[in-house]
Amino acid sequence: MTESQIASFDDWMHESVKHIEWVANDLLPKTGREPRRLIGAMRYAVLGGGKRIRALLCYAAGVVSGAQQADLDRAALALELVHAYSLVHDDMPSMDNDTLRRGKPTVHVQYGEATAMLAGDALQTEAFTVLTGMNHSVAVARLCGTLARAAGVRGMCGGQALDLAMVGGHPGEGELLMMQAMKTGALIQAAVLMGAQAGDWDRLGDGARGGLAAYADALGVAFQVVDDILDCTQDTATLGKTAGKDEKDDKPTWVSLLGLESARARARELHDRANAALALVAADPAVPEGAILRLQQIADYVIARSH
Amino acid sequence: MTESQIASFDDWMHESVKHIEWVANDLLPKTGREPRRLIGAMRYAVLGGGKRIRALLCYAAGVVSGAQQADLDRAALALELVHAYSLVHDDMPSMDNDTLRRGKPTVHVQYGEATAMLAGDALQTEAFTVLTGMNHSVAVARLCGTLARAAGVRGMCGGQALDLAMVGGHPGEGELLMMQAMKTGALIQAAVLMGAQAGDWDRLGDGARGGLAAYADALGVAFQVVDDILDCTQDTATLGKTAGKDEKDDKPTWVSLLGLESARARARELHDRANAALALVAADPAVPEGAILRLQQIADYVIARSH
Repeated sequence: MTESQIASFDDWMHESVKHIEWVANDLLPKTGREPRRLIGAMRYAVLGGGKRIRALLCYAAGVVSGAQQADLDRAALALELVHAYSLVHDDMPSMDNDTLRRGKPTVHVQYGEATAMLAGDALQTEAFTVLTGMNHSVAVARLCGTLARAAGVRGMCGGQALDLAMVGGHPGEGELLMMQAMKTGALIQAAVLMGAQAGDWDRLGDGARGGLAAYADALGVAFQVVDDILDCTQDTATLGKTAGKDEKDDKPTWVSLLGLESARARARELHDRANAALALVAADPAVPEGAILRLQQIADYVIARSH
Repeated sequence: MTESQIASFDDWMHESVKHIEWVANDLLPKTGREPRRLIGAMRYAVLGGGKRIRALLCYAAGVVSGAQQADLDRAALALELVHAYSLVHDDMPSMDNDTLRRGKPTVHVQYGEATAMLAGDALQTEAFTVLTGMNHSVAVARLCGTLARAAGVRGMCGGQALDLAMVGGHPGEGELLMMQAMKTGALIQAAVLMGAQAGDWDRLGDGARGGLAAYADALGVAFQVVDDILDCTQDTATLGKTAGKDEKDDKPTWVSLLGLESARARARELHDRANAALALVAADPAVPEGAILRLQQIADYVIARSH
């Protein structure tokens, strides 16, 4: 393929976001069937918005192991469903009590608390239904395992619990790092690993596997650092969610810990680490030439958001 | 094995309940580790009580396909974790608002609503972590699929949504049947199927597979009919949960629909259907002689509770 045939990152991202939206619309339970209200809330929570960064990472990593599109679609959707479920529950009154998400009323505002809780529950289950709908293979069992470990008590959900315990406290950098590595980083890492695991994972060497994990690790932290920067520098309309909420809630952030300029420097440092990790992936003879391009561009994109 | 070497049902049940408690204690995240409060709530929700009917069904069905104990343990625990998560969320104020469960304060009373929601979330994920901790095989992918389909929007969680929509209404027998088939029946059926799928599922013929599903189907309905009978005939101390709650909440039940005596007759009818289905299982040449014994005894036990 010549240089000119490779889509620009913007085009690729735009097409990929459109595609995962189509996949979600196609694979989620259809509107109008029973239980109507629950299905309505599930679709409302997933469709029509979001940066889809987890799906993008999954698609980008799938190139490294030559994954099939249909398998990648299910892996990417499963990740987005777990992410969507966590947002529905985190927004509820007993948690962050947020009323705006992606520029729309949050699910519990729109559908009530009981349905919002059930919608979150069902979205989590649906992630595993989507994965096992692929086939019953070793690869699917591995994908289910990677997703479950990232989403549960040792990952996203555990990080959310640590976050709750920190509100109003004064955690150090180590504690903040650990909390965010679990709350956000674990699913970001799963996105990269699952993309590769949807393809010929067994052919990848330890260097490439370790490189993918290290890339995801750096990117996960960078993503959070940039989110914290945006939360305190942008307004609600631009963000599509309530701005300045972390400060108002007395939540510890990278900006409150390091200050704005040091937080930006930290983001650049993590960018370098992500690129170094990708060099390890590219060095694996099983990885096709140019296969790390989209992963590289996603790292560029995430960091660029903070400037 | 001579007749006298086979443990009585009471002994088998007692030992099995003790064993799954041990398995849960062993495989759940350990007390004292971070996130402490979340792990505390998860263990509180799962350990120390419950009839463990789903684990018992899984163990009993595993005999039919010669499943290994360690694999059955993980399948049985996954089922109990999903059941426990559903109870934690169902008891919360926005749902049934119940304060007593298995004779103890419900999780949100003990740990607060935010932690209860996260504990339910993490217990669901943990079910898939436990299954995929077995190995990455075709059988594990199949187990994950069976559990996810039973627990999600087309099963337990969807049934809960239909139940919510019915409160204060006057559903007919068909609607009540559909709601309960999803809310309770789907996971009961998954318990029987997963027990068999943890073993040599591929050797079982269509007759045995269909028989197991039909047995579980009849038992699932019977279980609910008997629960409704007990709710209106026993006191809170005997039940270990708030008695008479369905009537107070104006919830439709088999007793409100059929009357007490007809509900009892219905339970006996379902008992006969369960036994007829087991005869199909026993007729499969791949099923060892006597392998349906525990499944038969569980049906006897469930029905006997209503008299």
